[in-house]
Amino acid sequence: MLLDLAVPWVDLAGIVVFAASGALVAARKGMDPVGFILIACVTAFGGGTVRDLLLGRTPVFWLRAPELIALAAVTAIVTFFIAERIASRERPLLWADAAGMALYAVLGAEIALLAGAQPWAAVLLGVVTATFGGILRDVICNEVPLILRREIYATAALAGAGLFVILRLEGVWREPAFAAGVAAAFGLRAWGLVSGWSLPAYRQPKGDGI
Amino acid sequence: MLLDLAVPWVDLAGIVVFAASGALVAARKGMDPVGFILIACVTAFGGGTVRDLLLGRTPVFWLRAPELIALAAVTAIVTFFIAERIASRERPLLWADAAGMALYAVLGAEIALLAGAQPWAAVLLGVVTATFGGILRDVICNEVPLILRREIYATAALAGAGLFVILRLEGVWREPAFAAGVAAAFGLRAWGLVSGWSLPAYRQPKGDGI
Amino acid sequence: MLLDLAVPWVDLAGIVVFAASGALVAARKGMDPVGFILIACVTAFGGGTVRDLLLGRTPVFWLRAPELIALAAVTAIVTFFIAERIASRERPLLWADAAGMALYAVLGAEIALLAGAQPWAAVLLGVVTATFGGILRDVICNEVPLILRREIYATAALAGAGLFVILRLEGVWREPAFAAGVAAAFGLRAWGLVSGWSLPAYRQPKGDGI
Repeated sequence: MLLDLAVPWVDLAGIVVFAASGALVAARKGMDPVGFILIACVTAFGGGTVRDLLLGRTPVFWLRAPELIALAAVTAIVTFFIAERIASRERPLLWADAAGMALYAVLGAEIALLAGAQPWAAVLLGVVTATFGGILRDVICNEVPLILRREIYATAALAGAGLFVILRLEGVWREPAFAAGVAAAFGLRAWGLVSGWSLPAYRQPKGDGI
Repeated sequence: MLLDLAVPWVDLAGIVVFAASGALVAARKGMDPVGFILIACVTAFGGGTVRDLLLGRTPVFWLRAPELIALAAVTAIVTFFIAERIASRERPLLWADAAGMALYAVLGAEIALLAGAQPWAAVLLGVVTATFGGILRDVICNEVPLILRREIYATAALAGAGLFVILRLEGVWREPAFAAGVAAAFGLRAWGLVSGWSLPAYRQPKGDGI
Repeated sequence: MLLDLAVPWVDLAGIVVFAASGALVAARKGMDPVGFILIACVTAFGGGTVRDLLLGRTPVFWLRAPELIALAAVTAIVTFFIAERIASRERPLLWADAAGMALYAVLGAEIALLAGAQPWAAVLLGVVTATFGGILRDVICNEVPLILRREIYATAALAGAGLFVILRLEGVWREPAFAAGVAAAFGLRAWGLVSGWSLPAYRQPKGDGI
């Protein structure tokens, strides 16, 4: 019951946290308020836009939803005024990005399923939805993409989207499947952030010529 | 009357100035003529292509307009030969980019209106049309995107596209609305370039840990 | 007869070499296996995805072809384990990328022709198919795009796609036209890699202020 009420709000929550993560990168770059709004929108809507383009769902969703744009813009402006009081923008950025990634991985997979994609394709589109907003944010802002860091990132999105799709195929109700997927993605990413744990990464051989 | 004759030519003018701005970045990178043409086309057609993809207008416009591709290619080749005589490519690049941005902001908003987008969405798509060609140029060429500079940029595109859409909704004829929008966008950007004036940007707190 | 049997396999070959080139960049960045798979897929499917989006062919091809995704993923994982034994990843990367570029230039042009694009547009879409996977790989991984290097790159893709389209319009059978186009593109790029030969590039004037 509580979850049932909560779920319609999660895509708004995803927009807020990803817009905030975009605005925090804009703060690192010393951009003006319009720049904050632009980068916040690219981050919040980039992943879903790529997903919709790949599926052929056009015009893309946010062109018919001014309230979503307004939400991202307000988040960007609020961040503009409060970011100054935060001693470091590095940690809040990582956590806002982690929350957005987890929510979007599951939401993206669900939207792809509803659009008729096969289960494996829905999982991939969940990963695309979760990662491309952040990739676009970092590429446009000339930052090293978060996805290149050693901590678990795409792996967490894959786990969350995969768990959600498997549970749904097994007949689990939407809300518990949703909660489980988001928890798996966020938990894995959070674990990586806190512990520095990661999958075994490629080891550079000694005396590497590159 | 004069304006009436002039307007059909402005999208060609936008292609020429944006293609030239792309070719000037190619010159900074020491690319070969084919590279000049590629970057000129990405810059001149990138913003409109993203706009059309978001709206679902495919195949995109330039796939049916060889004359536009030819215009961008000729501009790139001419720039290849004359760029050498220009002492610095920095200033001409900034001014060509400013002219392209102003023209595309208004043209993009108009095309979105004609495609049935709501007014607020048309303004956003004008900003997308004006900025994404330059963003793609700078990202592919490993340059710091112009949009990240402190001078007014996205703000100018927003002002031009917004003024055009408002005037059109108020019943103003196309040509004066077009001229007013382009003048607003270019004037604001030119003012920023000349005076260094900008919106109040985010101030890094002292002792910032990032 | 031999060629006739060989041709259906070339798009699989293109996926393998481009996926390997993506995985080799992931190795340079010390990414984990999921990162290897992600960058391999972006490289192998990025160019064709952009081509299909421009043409309006959605859902894009790989959303209905799990076997292609699996092929790229397996290639990425194999590369993860064998890259360590290779003294330098620089040269194999350049050659794998060259082979992928040549195959995709011709395949992309053919798919565009079959989709009803005009000949000149098909040549351009061949260049887009051949170059955008590598551009996306390099931009996401924060590398200097290969296309910016002084050796021939886009020029080779243009030559291969152009030769294929001309031969097909002249009535040459698919297989010899295909082989000629791939040979032209690969040969030109290989010549550039081996000899350092390139088109005359833009010469920076002395005392250049930039």
